[in-house]
Amino acid sequence: MGLSVLSHPQDKEQLLTYFETHIMHILNWLAAFSPDENGGITRLLYTEGWLNTQQALAVKMASHGLETEFDEVGNLFGKLQGEDRHAPSIITGSHIDTVVQGGKYDGAYGIAAGLLAVNYLQQQFGKPKRTIEVVSLCEEEGSRFPIAYWGSGSIAGKRDFEQIARLRDMDEVSFTDAMRECGFGEGSGRSSRRQDIGAFIEVHIEQGAVLETEKAAIGIVDAIAGQRRMKFEVTGEPNHAGTTPMHMRRDALEGASAMIQELRREAMKQGAPLVATVGQLNVQPNVPNVVPGKVMFTVDARHGDEEALGSFCEWVMNTFKRLAEERDLAFSGMEWFSERPVPMDAGIKRHMDEITEELGIASMRMVSGAGHDAVMFEHICKAGMLFVPSRGGISHSPLEYTAPSELAAGVLVLAELLYRLGYGEER
Amino acid sequence: MGLSVLSHPQDKEQLLTYFETHIMHILNWLAAFSPDENGGITRLLYTEGWLNTQQALAVKMASHGLETEFDEVGNLFGKLQGEDRHAPSIITGSHIDTVVQGGKYDGAYGIAAGLLAVNYLQQQFGKPKRTIEVVSLCEEEGSRFPIAYWGSGSIAGKRDFEQIARLRDMDEVSFTDAMRECGFGEGSGRSSRRQDIGAFIEVHIEQGAVLETEKAAIGIVDAIAGQRRMKFEVTGEPNHAGTTPMHMRRDALEGASAMIQELRREAMKQGAPLVATVGQLNVQPNVPNVVPGKVMFTVDARHGDEEALGSFCEWVMNTFKRLAEERDLAFSGMEWFSERPVPMDAGIKRHMDEITEELGIASMRMVSGAGHDAVMFEHICKAGMLFVPSRGGISHSPLEYTAPSELAAGVLVLAELLYRLGYGEER
Repeated sequence: MGLSVLSHPQDKEQLLTYFETHIMHILNWLAAFSPDENGGITRLLYTEGWLNTQQALAVKMASHGLETEFDEVGNLFGKLQGEDRHAPSIITGSHIDTVVQGGKYDGAYGIAAGLLAVNYLQQQFGKPKRTIEVVSLCEEEGSRFPIAYWGSGSIAGKRDFEQIARLRDMDEVSFTDAMRECGFGEGSGRSSRRQDIGAFIEVHIEQGAVLETEKAAIGIVDAIAGQRRMKFEVTGEPNHAGTTPMHMRRDALEGASAMIQELRREAMKQGAPLVATVGQLNVQPNVPNVVPGKVMFTVDARHGDEEALGSFCEWVMNTFKRLAEERDLAFSGMEWFSERPVPMDAGIKRHMDEITEELGIASMRMVSGAGHDAVMFEHICKAGMLFVPSRGGISHSPLEYTAPSELAAGVLVLAELLYRLGYGEER
Repeated sequence: MGLSVLSHPQDKEQLLTYFETHIMHILNWLAAFSPDENGGITRLLYTEGWLNTQQALAVKMASHGLETEFDEVGNLFGKLQGEDRHAPSIITGSHIDTVVQGGKYDGAYGIAAGLLAVNYLQQQFGKPKRTIEVVSLCEEEGSRFPIAYWGSGSIAGKRDFEQIARLRDMDEVSFTDAMRECGFGEGSGRSSRRQDIGAFIEVHIEQGAVLETEKAAIGIVDAIAGQRRMKFEVTGEPNHAGTTPMHMRRDALEGASAMIQELRREAMKQGAPLVATVGQLNVQPNVPNVVPGKVMFTVDARHGDEEALGSFCEWVMNTFKRLAEERDLAFSGMEWFSERPVPMDAGIKRHMDEITEELGIASMRMVSGAGHDAVMFEHICKAGMLFVPSRGGISHSPLEYTAPSELAAGVLVLAELLYRLGYGEER
């Protein structure tokens, strides 16, 4: 075993117990700032609950001896200054915002884990070689305004004030006004754009059931899946359900259902990490006694490999077209959203492989089907992610749950990784 | 050839030309009373256009020497008194109301054909042995108020004032008020209930494309299909479209699409007169990036034979249940509407077979997939229906069309049938 937060192997259980207690303490404390009426957490960008949470976090960071700073969009940084003032920062954290009626782990866990790991490192090892920062990113979910990755995107130069100038929430409140009311906005503080970051490490709940099923404690993210969204329109003839014999029908829903079946068959055949979903489907005229004349539906396809994703989407388009033609249905399809797969840094992944093996924690490499802030950071630095299990794969729900011992394992791996990156000889 | 409206075979073409001219004249005249802004006909029950049409029809009937009478719900009768005042009446006609933005043939054709045929018979043969009546039924479509067959149902004793007492239209106008405004309602005239009808003959456009496809001029309706409507709910789990591997999904829409495919396969296999339609389908939560958690959909199944319809619906229920179980999806299904098949009178059908053969008009027996007023009359008398082709199977649309020559063929067959029933020795 090389450098390690564990001075002796027998310390592991003790350290896990310590992390277990403290991580639950921080998560429960954060959750208390933005409870919603239905037993979940609703912490939307630039709301009062959001501001209270960020401000309380700033106080906690400072009490841990971190230098705190908000940037002009409201990202909160807690910095543990390193000896080498010119070395790029190692940053860890995640987003503080939630979806409407979310759980207390999504996002918050990454911040709490960072806070806890950095605090432990500082107590045990003092000043690091390189600066380590914990970040509470202001926004990732896109739940209040129609824009996502506002926090990490602003840091990476992928979001700017022009993009949000006309955005309004459901209550017609403008993005700019909501931001100003919290004390943020253009010129309110340090510019968000950063070019001094060496690595970004994010720990997050998996939001799927793969780790649980595979009985792995840690998922080492190989890549964040690329995503393509397509929409299709299948048009037949809206005939009378009583007077049109079966063989004379041009039933758009029958055609669409054949497409859904074929999509499922092919996606099952190709298997993980490919996933393909028809999540939205609307029928016209959608009355019981008329043969459907038109069906519009979406396909969401994801894969960790760009080429595999592209060829699958091509297969989808060709297959749907053929199925429509066989049924004398008109067909149109288009891709309206495409995001390339984002590979995580190979060196960081190797570190995580080694660390989990050395610590005797069951881990596996996996593709993240969901998007994360690491996608934005990958533009400007090395990015790495690790997942802990989500019970039943549930997320974006008050039922979201990860056992304290599982959360603690994530903190331990993070601490060890930050130790290597921040205190070790090589970055 | 036995009794016939054609004194000599060579008269047939001449008579068809006569009917062709006159049927178009009447249909265009009727259509002019209730045009809608979009080029169709909208003649809803108890509206001003509806009342104008019925009143104009009464004048026309009277000018043709018929004794006219409205009953208390607004059905209009034009009576050609027969020699035998005790013999039950022979009635022909259809409904005067239309759907919103309908065509000029659905319903109106049956009235116009009756008027023309009876006028011709009277001119050629004078007083019949048995009373013949032309009826313009006030309502069949259920387009203004949520009740159908109001006209024929009132005659047959299957509709009464209690059923409509609380009904309101989309503008919150009560059924009773609308009826009163037109001068109708309980006690306003002769009771609608009739027990002196021997036979009801309805000619109607097919509203399907069977006759057109089979190149038949006349459809002799064997039965009006029985109809069952079922609704189903398939419940899986609304998972994240990115983080849930294919084999871990419980996708309600995938399950429903498999059911739609199986339904189609079986209905095609059984073939006509069975038809089965999934016309309405709703997905929850219906967003592109969530695996559908719930799908609700309907099945409308029709068949001319009660037993065949029943066993098909049982197959549907069992098959859907199995498909849901195979996918670990929760499933519920119920039948919420059931109407038995209504056979048309065997003697009338035989007459129609003979008549079309003798006249050299291509005909075929068929099941009506749509419901018609004949369904109500079948409770109180012999009922028969004949169809003429609908171009492209289109109905309930301004694009509804039947060629004048095809309309004329229907009038000729009707005239011959009424001659046999009203003037012949045997009824």
